[in-house]
Amino acid sequence: DADGGPNVITGPSIRWRLASSFSRSLDTIYGAAEVMAQRVADLTEGKFDIRCYPGGELIPSLEVLSNVQTGTVQMGHAASYYFIGKNPALAFDATVPFGLTARQYNAWLYHGGGMDLMRDLFSDFNVINFPGGNTGMQMGGWFRVAVESLSDLNGLKMRIPGLGGQVMNEMGVNTQVYPSGEIYPALERGAIDAAEWVGPYDDEKLGFHEVAPYYYYPGWWEPGPALTFYVNQDAYDKLPATYQHALAVAASEANVNMLASYDHKNPAALERLLEQGTELRKFPEDVMSKAQDVTQQLLEDEAAGNAQYRKIYESYKAARSDSYRWFGTAERAYADFAFPTNT
Amino acid sequence: DADGGPNVITGPSIRWRLASSFSRSLDTIYGAAEVMAQRVADLTEGKFDIRCYPGGELIPSLEVLSNVQTGTVQMGHAASYYFIGKNPALAFDATVPFGLTARQYNAWLYHGGGMDLMRDLFSDFNVINFPGGNTGMQMGGWFRVAVESLSDLNGLKMRIPGLGGQVMNEMGVNTQVYPSGEIYPALERGAIDAAEWVGPYDDEKLGFHEVAPYYYYPGWWEPGPALTFYVNQDAYDKLPATYQHALAVAASEANVNMLASYDHKNPAALERLLEQGTELRKFPEDVMSKAQDVTQQLLEDEAAGNAQYRKIYESYKAARSDSYRWFGTAERAYADFAFPTNT
Repeated sequence: DADGGPNVITGPSIRWRLASSFSRSLDTIYGAAEVMAQRVADLTEGKFDIRCYPGGELIPSLEVLSNVQTGTVQMGHAASYYFIGKNPALAFDATVPFGLTARQYNAWLYHGGGMDLMRDLFSDFNVINFPGGNTGMQMGGWFRVAVESLSDLNGLKMRIPGLGGQVMNEMGVNTQVYPSGEIYPALERGAIDAAEWVGPYDDEKLGFHEVAPYYYYPGWWEPGPALTFYVNQDAYDKLPATYQHALAVAASEANVNMLASYDHKNPAALERLLEQGTELRKFPEDVMSKAQDVTQQLLEDEAAGNAQYRKIYESYKAARSDSYRWFGTAERAYADFAFPTNT
Repeated sequence: DADGGPNVITGPSIRWRLASSFSRSLDTIYGAAEVMAQRVADLTEGKFDIRCYPGGELIPSLEVLSNVQTGTVQMGHAASYYFIGKNPALAFDATVPFGLTARQYNAWLYHGGGMDLMRDLFSDFNVINFPGGNTGMQMGGWFRVAVESLSDLNGLKMRIPGLGGQVMNEMGVNTQVYPSGEIYPALERGAIDAAEWVGPYDDEKLGFHEVAPYYYYPGWWEPGPALTFYVNQDAYDKLPATYQHALAVAASEANVNMLASYDHKNPAALERLLEQGTELRKFPEDVMSKAQDVTQQLLEDEAAGNAQYRKIYESYKAARSDSYRWFGTAERAYADFAFPTNT
């Protein structure tokens, strides 16, 4: 304290840098970091100043975690499945195919033991993690050709990265990875038959509806992708306790705020796409069933040889299994009645 | 500042009282106030000290808003539909039958213009409001007799308050209002045939499953009941800006945290109830349809004679209508596949 008296809180001036994995064009996701940083500033009279940098500006998008680990930046914001090359269990911090929805993920993380497991996992990276947003259920992407059954996937060329890509690959899809700016031209010239991105609001900005007529759902490989704030443990440990609390609470606010923002923007974007002729299509049942089987095998195979992965997987799987009946009861029966449009 | 220097934040010691409308036995809802107060204390080195009191301890549960208005307490926590006798538009701050789900409500409130409308409404009470939790979709309650169709509601005696009670009444139900402690004995002795409360976790504690075999869903009169923190405007205006931010951000955290807590507790409670012989039943389609028609008429009738109500109702209705297709697409198709238990 400046004068040792009980009525004075000393607050040091601290400037941090946050590297996001996302470009400014993904304004809802990138924006969550700025929402968080603004609130931290407001809580500390501007003394705890976190500058946010979009993906690639300071650090390549896929190197955010390693740069928080080494302390090049004090903080990062990304979807942890970007880093499954370092540890496949990081997928559970974001989402896995046929995994938890946004609400189920928050339940598992905040109250079902998920946070302890994730904190333990990130401690191997000298990082402390804070849940920092969710997009909600994503779409299955844009298709130039109709998929009437599982066999139609055979030989299809699709832009889809990550675990979803692995599952598609097992189902005969020729999977490709393009960065966001190259997807549209590839789809337009027919180098790929299909491409997935996020959901109506983000997809509309990239113009996929101009070059592919069918918009498939649901994006079963991303049922509730979570974003995470990473904080370098050494930098965190040096903060006053009030600043540590400011980070935690501002991350929680960014978490609820990002989902609410998508849930506000996606409905209107979907309507605009439909007005421009986009045709909504549901993935056939045999595609869904096969994809779920392939997913379970992939996750089990990984767990078989990896005790750390297995421990997290078992907890995640139990949370999903326990959620099953409750979320299939009141919440879904209401949706069936009130939002029957997909039948 | 204590010494006028740029590195010192002065924080006054402030003690407030918060009156909750909820008993400690509703630990998830009541607990959200304590979660919020603890975080505010942590953000201010304990200087901003909010003491929480359960319903009835300091102030009767249904008089929380008026006591925040007059400044008897600086803060309150309740569901705003408790106060529709003061202004029927307060229902939209909590929930209305066939209204928004928890996610849709957050989208409307945080991003769809709902907050401005609610702030305007609460300014008539000298109150500034902060969203402070959600239970998620509630259950339809406990029935001693089966409801196979709309005609079975005729003459049924049911404990159900609020707008849901009004709608049930229009459908022939003889509605009753009992406080929580008197519901079980009334149901046991057959003074009522049915009673609604919250959902599996809270209902289980009151033991309704011991005296009524059928557990109906969904609780269409409460699709996403929101809780709200009320702050006396004069008390709020006297706070340092950092303390104002601490209140706002801690309320947001309590918001996401309460829903996550229910989403973690309800699944296990439902399983325990089923193990004890409870039979899940879905409300028949004709009950749902009739209830929705009656609800729309009630809301329209109220709006016809009340410009303030109409303005809020139109915004709320538009948010629901705009959400309709998006929430019926990816999110629901995934639920259909992944949580098919209610069919």
